[in-house]
Amino acid sequence: MPRYEMLSGEAVETIERGWQRLVAEVGIAFDHPEALRRFRDAGQRVEDDVVFLDPAFVLEQVALAPQRFHLHGRDAARAVDIGGDEMVFVAVEGPPFVREGDERREGTLADLERFVALGHVHDEIDVPGSLACEANDRPLDSRHLDMVRAALVGSDKPLVGASISRVAAEDSLELAALVAGGREALERSPSVLANVNVNSPLRYDERMLDGLLVYAAAGQPLLVTPFLLMGAMAPVTVAAALVQQLAEALAGVALTQLVRPGTPVVLGSFLSHTDMRTGAPGFGGPEAALGLIASGQLARRYGLPWRSGGGGLTTSQSVDAQAAWEALNTLLPAFLAGANVVVHAAGWLESGLVACYEKYLVDVELLGILRAQFTPFAFDEAALAFDAHVEVGHSGHFLGAAHTLARYRDCFRLPVLSSTDSFERWTRVGAPDTATRAAAGWRAALDRYAVPPLEDGVRAALDEHVLRRRRELGD
Amino acid sequence: MPRYEMLSGEAVETIERGWQRLVAEVGIAFDHPEALRRFRDAGQRVEDDVVFLDPAFVLEQVALAPQRFHLHGRDAARAVDIGGDEMVFVAVEGPPFVREGDERREGTLADLERFVALGHVHDEIDVPGSLACEANDRPLDSRHLDMVRAALVGSDKPLVGASISRVAAEDSLELAALVAGGREALERSPSVLANVNVNSPLRYDERMLDGLLVYAAAGQPLLVTPFLLMGAMAPVTVAAALVQQLAEALAGVALTQLVRPGTPVVLGSFLSHTDMRTGAPGFGGPEAALGLIASGQLARRYGLPWRSGGGGLTTSQSVDAQAAWEALNTLLPAFLAGANVVVHAAGWLESGLVACYEKYLVDVELLGILRAQFTPFAFDEAALAFDAHVEVGHSGHFLGAAHTLARYRDCFRLPVLSSTDSFERWTRVGAPDTATRAAAGWRAALDRYAVPPLEDGVRAALDEHVLRRRRELGD
Repeated sequence: MPRYEMLSGEAVETIERGWQRLVAEVGIAFDHPEALRRFRDAGQRVEDDVVFLDPAFVLEQVALAPQRFHLHGRDAARAVDIGGDEMVFVAVEGPPFVREGDERREGTLADLERFVALGHVHDEIDVPGSLACEANDRPLDSRHLDMVRAALVGSDKPLVGASISRVAAEDSLELAALVAGGREALERSPSVLANVNVNSPLRYDERMLDGLLVYAAAGQPLLVTPFLLMGAMAPVTVAAALVQQLAEALAGVALTQLVRPGTPVVLGSFLSHTDMRTGAPGFGGPEAALGLIASGQLARRYGLPWRSGGGGLTTSQSVDAQAAWEALNTLLPAFLAGANVVVHAAGWLESGLVACYEKYLVDVELLGILRAQFTPFAFDEAALAFDAHVEVGHSGHFLGAAHTLARYRDCFRLPVLSSTDSFERWTRVGAPDTATRAAAGWRAALDRYAVPPLEDGVRAALDEHVLRRRRELGD
Repeated sequence: MPRYEMLSGEAVETIERGWQRLVAEVGIAFDHPEALRRFRDAGQRVEDDVVFLDPAFVLEQVALAPQRFHLHGRDAARAVDIGGDEMVFVAVEGPPFVREGDERREGTLADLERFVALGHVHDEIDVPGSLACEANDRPLDSRHLDMVRAALVGSDKPLVGASISRVAAEDSLELAALVAGGREALERSPSVLANVNVNSPLRYDERMLDGLLVYAAAGQPLLVTPFLLMGAMAPVTVAAALVQQLAEALAGVALTQLVRPGTPVVLGSFLSHTDMRTGAPGFGGPEAALGLIASGQLARRYGLPWRSGGGGLTTSQSVDAQAAWEALNTLLPAFLAGANVVVHAAGWLESGLVACYEKYLVDVELLGILRAQFTPFAFDEAALAFDAHVEVGHSGHFLGAAHTLARYRDCFRLPVLSSTDSFERWTRVGAPDTATRAAAGWRAALDRYAVPPLEDGVRAALDEHVLRRRRELGD
């Protein structure tokens, strides 16, 4: 399907001039001596912690990154391509809380394991992630070990690595290397996707830079993502947010290429608005959708894969109508904009504070709908069904027509969560709303789940590494 | 904003050949002697009730209809343009039932009056309609009088007329003429929008044709709408449904121009799928969205305004997540496709069996979001906010920046129904979900409602007409 583009050539040029002026005249702050040294060594002007970047230099570095790359999974068949026309869907990342029905509580390692399982069984999710919720019941300093291990053992799909600190990043790589057959094999076959957020406006902080430097050095794919809530971390106009987003993301991409030329990297976008009455974030609104569509059009200029902020983003506190429309109004623009990576594609609730089981199922249904919706339909003679019209004529219906009988099983996408029951039947089965049906849906999905096979030796090595490192970290 | 188009030139030609073959070789049935006579007099081959149409003749007739026209309201300021880049939103039409909170019951005249009031107070609705729900508490044969009167008195926005029979159509015109200042004034300033459904496949029935002939003769704008549920009234492929839709709609448009050349007419589309497991209709699915986007691209070839099937279509039985995503996945494609008229834009629930107060508010919110979303944003120097970056620098936030303070009131669309409350605050106020908030919302909207002024003489004439005709109809 074609991409939806909205910016005139003139508008694109205006934004282009905008980010170039921003990096050159205001500059980007990097809270890390290695980052500052690398930029200085490459001839960029550095004053205190601010790098003033030559736009031509930034573009040269950006051109070193691949347009498209392969993200490997533990099972080769689970690998995905990132770039071009491909879309890759990563489950929710980062919530401290989980919601299960009407219960909202702190997330645990058991919750994370269940979210990994949900991501594993659903074809709509390419990357279940190691960060679907925080394992609050594990010690803080070594928690990342348990979380990455849970993702590696629970699914053979590609991994999300921790990027919150140097230690967490290095441990993620070491665990992934045990599965990949050593560090060299891992670097040859990138299989850990990690996200680095910009501390917007115009600043990369030390912890995030630690993560960026570790993953880039290992040749693992990074999402470099300005985190822009217009009104808070960015000005209140979409045009200004697009300018800032490019300035921040392209500067970070340039750094990845200074570290390791050719390392795979994704131009990130996370762009939404602030509720100016309260200062709270807002999602799924018109400004975010416009920003998302424009982000895709702009990203393609730089020959990089790009990430849309998120899939089913919403501020809603429960799995209600608002949760659904905000999620769809984030996901559908991501499809129109041709995002290569969609993070938070399933399970996000309450502005990302909550990973919700029922919302996970809603988002999976939305992904299924949109994947079918963005697949063009056939146009051969048979599709025109002239003979069916001759057969049915001017009354009656097509339910029994030969054309229908040959196709009825797969002519329309079969929903897994929607109900087309009559009111009478729906009432008879207890009048379950979508959230109620979703609760049954994720439990049924977990029943279908089987832990994918893993060599005993590899599993033992993972366990041993986790134990050893946990001790070393004092937990 | 640009339209989203997906059909290749070759695909368009294939569909073009398809509908031409269908009208010429299979033909369209018209259950009405006047319609058959008009086609025969125009040189078309008629066998029994089937008209075999020369595609060139159809296109000649279609070319007589205006590309764009004015739909007048009782208040001149409420008039809307139909055609070009304009989008006009008509509330739900036809449900026998209403839903208010958890109560589902037969609709009454009082319900209709409340829906008219909701359509009147909300700027997102251009045409509240006289058919928002059935007035089951009024006598069947004269009910249309009460319903049209309710719409004329309750709002000064443009009117939807009844088209269910010749009597209902003529009474609608007579009532509208009383308000417009006579029949001649009404014909000079078209102000009654009426919908005529095709009895698909390939048949116009007598009652619908009665309506079509009455409105066309009076020069009032008609929506000519094939009602296609793929699998039931149309083949199961989108391509075939598009072919059938054009064959049926263009044949009906040709008839309107035979009756009164130049009469305003809208190419209709109502295209969705059937749940093949149960035979029930399905809405908001990927096939309908694809069909809608393709319908817009095709309609523009004929220089006619076009109607998208509906706004917030859904099979859902309550105002839950499914209701919201199906509604948005019908509305958003209508915006992408550039529909000129969107019927059922607010209030539709349960496959159109129910007009729902809370859903009305949800749809109004969705319309508000999408209207903002399809308004391009500014690109002047001020929008780029360079000075704001100089002011804020590399840390802090933009909440207090001069650029923000000058714009914070209207930089983002203010939602009326969404909640961005924190979990704690939301819990404190009773944890209301969207449907609960919508219940408060429509009651508040009715509190804001004031019956728009109407000359005493006109009101008396309307009342007198309704009383007289009700007696004549034996009720």
